[in-house]
Amino acid sequence: MPQNEPATSPPGHGGLVRVRLDVGYDGTGFSGWAAQPGRRTVEGVLSEAVTQVIRPGPPGDADRPVRLTVAGRTDAGVHARGQVTHADVETRLWLALSGTPGRQQRAPERAALARLRAVLPDDLVVHRVSVAPNGFDARFSAISRRYLYRICDAPEALDPLRRWDTVVVRRRLDAAAMSAASQMLLGLGDFAAFCKRRQGATTVRHLLDYSWRRDDDGVLLASITADAFCHSMVRSLVGAAVAVGEGRRAVGWPAEVLAGGQRGVQVMPARGLSLEQVGYPPEDQLGARAQRSRSLRRLTSRVDPPA
Amino acid sequence: MPQNEPATSPPGHGGLVRVRLDVGYDGTGFSGWAAQPGRRTVEGVLSEAVTQVIRPGPPGDADRPVRLTVAGRTDAGVHARGQVTHADVETRLWLALSGTPGRQQRAPERAALARLRAVLPDDLVVHRVSVAPNGFDARFSAISRRYLYRICDAPEALDPLRRWDTVVVRRRLDAAAMSAASQMLLGLGDFAAFCKRRQGATTVRHLLDYSWRRDDDGVLLASITADAFCHSMVRSLVGAAVAVGEGRRAVGWPAEVLAGGQRGVQVMPARGLSLEQVGYPPEDQLGARAQRSRSLRRLTSRVDPPA
Repeated sequence: MPQNEPATSPPGHGGLVRVRLDVGYDGTGFSGWAAQPGRRTVEGVLSEAVTQVIRPGPPGDADRPVRLTVAGRTDAGVHARGQVTHADVETRLWLALSGTPGRQQRAPERAALARLRAVLPDDLVVHRVSVAPNGFDARFSAISRRYLYRICDAPEALDPLRRWDTVVVRRRLDAAAMSAASQMLLGLGDFAAFCKRRQGATTVRHLLDYSWRRDDDGVLLASITADAFCHSMVRSLVGAAVAVGEGRRAVGWPAEVLAGGQRGVQVMPARGLSLEQVGYPPEDQLGARAQRSRSLRRLTSRVDPPA
Repeated sequence: MPQNEPATSPPGHGGLVRVRLDVGYDGTGFSGWAAQPGRRTVEGVLSEAVTQVIRPGPPGDADRPVRLTVAGRTDAGVHARGQVTHADVETRLWLALSGTPGRQQRAPERAALARLRAVLPDDLVVHRVSVAPNGFDARFSAISRRYLYRICDAPEALDPLRRWDTVVVRRRLDAAAMSAASQMLLGLGDFAAFCKRRQGATTVRHLLDYSWRRDDDGVLLASITADAFCHSMVRSLVGAAVAVGEGRRAVGWPAEVLAGGQRGVQVMPARGLSLEQVGYPPEDQLGARAQRSRSLRRLTSRVDPPA
């Protein structure tokens, strides 16, 4: 591997440039993030668009779509406002986005953003295109994921324009009780009780924040942050709090479930959930973080299945 | 007309009760408020639902749908979060909503709300059902209408979940200039320059508030309040401010247009617009206000066409 690479090329990717894409999507019309044959997925649609924009070659060339690495795989129907993904693309193709030298040129980032916008559907928006700093990996460099969950507990108050990302429940919820119950789950713990079982995968996670508030319209908003989430974990954590909010369970019940490790918590619908933000460490720690994450994954077979 | 009416029946409606419905809708799938043959309209869908709920008679009976009077007729694609409408329904049918005497009963308001929710589609929500106070008229008692307009001037920042009620413009807008321009339009004036021409209809309106701000996501929000609006007036007022915000026009231009009375202002797209609130005077002034509004309408042939 050459030691003197172009400035845009992170170590270990000779001739390639790692491009970071910050995206948002309305999950309603997608069968989740992960590409599946015959299904409309975010990965599928985005990868196709990136392939088309970066590699404007003959049709046969696009048969090998650009591979995307994502911070938070989302389930069918789950939305995102702050999803992060990266793709490694050939440096010569990346630089060619600027246009022919001598003629009107613009930065490849700007050109890619404009061209992606032109080919993407309305329910998938690229917010930002940037060259990733050295050591960056959308998945393994991430130190936190923050999700939002929206619940309207007064069906008659629902704003019909928000029906796509708001779950309606019939009973009024006690937000104070839900907050108290959620606070008791914070910290490093084994969240097996809130995860879909997966052979050989650890369910130890660090829950950094889990808080509830009402917005100006009276909609209940949960903000949930962890280093990472296992499959269906966010929606199960919300389900446990809702059981408390409805008065069906005591405030201490979700913490008992966590301690006992028994499953059986209600998994809330996908439409209320949105990936809001992915946290990364300062640039000089990106590589170290990614290496650590990868080693941990190897040690524990830990994976990040869909949220 | 009997002088001793049931308490629920306002004067002048012997045997009838005036029911106020506060509603919200996603205008995307409607051809506006006003019923039109062969089109899906808010009035059509709501009137059909009210007819079905209040008059659960044989099919032939529902051929005469309940007539609705509305505070703000909205154009195709325009949304509402705070629309107000009323219907006069037979007192005996209204009271029958409570159920059979002696069995489990609930207030007609609650029963009507629950039944309407059960039959209405997802894009039309009844927020509240109430018996209107004496003298109330959804249209003629209203003293103000407040509209909201949403513009995203950074296409890459658009939240795809808000694409149904947000208009995207390509150029960054100068919100301070737009605010300054909008302030100059306040007060009583002839808004002919901002209205679709209508034979014999006055275009004198009292603009009570027209302000711009950015929300936490950077989306530009206009709040526009007047006693009433003539056709396309809100969207033209927004168009004039956008011309200023883009730097195509000077800050004083919208006021010049208002003074000059010449049309030619850009009418902004419907999807950004929503009727947020209708203002009514205190209960003891409702009747007087309605009479005054009706007299004014007679004097000037003034009408309230769609916003």
